Amino acid sequence: MTMEAIGVFDSGIGGLTVVKELVNLMPHENIIYFGDTARVPYGTKSADTILRYSIENSIFLLKHKVKCIIVACNTASAYALTHLQHVFKVPVIGVISPGATAALQASHNKKIAVIGTKATMQSNAYQQELLRQNPEAEISTYACPLFVPLVEEGLFHHDATLLLIREYLNPILNSSIDTLLLGCTHYPLLEDQIKKVVGPHITLVNSAKACAQSVLKTLEREKLCKTATQPGISRFFVSDDPSKFESMATHFFGEALSHIDIATP
Amino acid sequence: MTMEAIGVFDSGIGGLTVVKELVNLMPHENIIYFGDTARVPYGTKSADTILRYSIENSIFLLKHKVKCIIVACNTASAYALTHLQHVFKVPVIGVISPGATAALQASHNKKIAVIGTKATMQSNAYQQELLRQNPEAEISTYACPLFVPLVEEGLFHHDATLLLIREYLNPILNSSIDTLLLGCTHYPLLEDQIKKVVGPHITLVNSAKACAQSVLKTLEREKLCKTATQPGISRFFVSDDPSKFESMATHFFGEALSHIDIATP
Repeated sequence: MTMEAIGVFDSGIGGLTVVKELVNLMPHENIIYFGDTARVPYGTKSADTILRYSIENSIFLLKHKVKCIIVACNTASAYALTHLQHVFKVPVIGVISPGATAALQASHNKKIAVIGTKATMQSNAYQQELLRQNPEAEISTYACPLFVPLVEEGLFHHDATLLLIREYLNPILNSSIDTLLLGCTHYPLLEDQIKKVVGPHITLVNSAKACAQSVLKTLEREKLCKTATQPGISRFFVSDDPSKFESMATHFFGEALSHIDIATP
Repeated sequence: MTMEAIGVFDSGIGGLTVVKELVNLMPHENIIYFGDTARVPYGTKSADTILRYSIENSIFLLKHKVKCIIVACNTASAYALTHLQHVFKVPVIGVISPGATAALQASHNKKIAVIGTKATMQSNAYQQELLRQNPEAEISTYACPLFVPLVEEGLFHHDATLLLIREYLNPILNSSIDTLLLGCTHYPLLEDQIKKVVGPHITLVNSAKACAQSVLKTLEREKLCKTATQPGISRFFVSDDPSKFESMATHFFGEALSHIDIATP
């Protein structure tokens, strides 16, 4: 077994919330992360282009001998996952299916709302996956286009952020859903504020956490877990100047990143 | 004289604020607008790529026999204008130099603040142009990254928008500037709210309006003004699905656009 690292790619920085959960759950695993910061955002691009970028990012990770590929980007998960799973030998895991499973497990009445970027919500990927897993479920989806820029500006606790959460989630407050699925890797950084708005009767499900649990299960099933017990090493690559990525990483990852390299996939 | 239209390009929809001012000032002129909605935003791209896109957009306009090219995009003005002026025979006019001139004319104490996107502010183009025109001027610049997404979400009068304007412009309120230059084509849509925050003692200067005046002067000087007096016709092209552009156009242009075509530059 020479392939010792978990490979993760994202269109930018959001996938670090997935890496954080992977490290929490499997502290001994090595991780190679690629953030495509030169081509972010994917959400405004065509399906063909998103697929091409996802293939290039996967090949970059495979050159680093990863034992699995985590598509830690909702847009890429929505548009490219099936193709990547079809093409590559290693397991390829996205964020949508694990998020859907976790939401259905958390929900008692199977009335679930999903929030995400405009592109992810327009893809209908969450709705389709939730209904595939449970055709009886009642799904509503809401695009919240300002959440990503608010997070990227670091305004987690600003009054304006709370007002905008109220604005976007107002329809949810008047509905009978019991579970809210955070369908964007940036949204866990607004979790506390979102909880304040929706109150204690709605359970928040974090796709990043669900994805990490799915990765652990897959590695166990495929007998790919690392056997050595020394702490894992994480390496980070980005496709554009790392300075912005580095300065924001602490918010997403929970601690500063030690070393970020620039790389072209 | 077969070249009868004024050509305008922008990375997306913001340039419509310039078209609005052109139509106000020169209602008899024809206009060809190209919004590069498939490749928006330019601000996150490298200087080489911004230049390449700007050349392609200009050539698209020239195929429609425009008599001048207006670079109604601050990022493209900052990174590509000089090259376009060097390469093309027709006059090429950006938004930065006219904006700087108008701000210096409006200011009594020559203490001027400029606001814009992160990319435009990082290019230092406004600062350099203002100091080139008046080396004694005192210039401060502030990036306001959330203003574009707020405008694109149509939240012009939302309380959150007012809070975020206060957040970004707080340093201006405690300074001695007398003029605030809106260095982004989206910002005129927040003009009323910005005025509320900065108060009556600070003059707001709109780059779009200044650009239109510069175009009129250039056409007069070059004897390129349209001689026929029937109302001008405006045609709009975008590089991606026009539906989003169409639905937002009313805010930027002041009225609905009658016909939008899709085109690849």
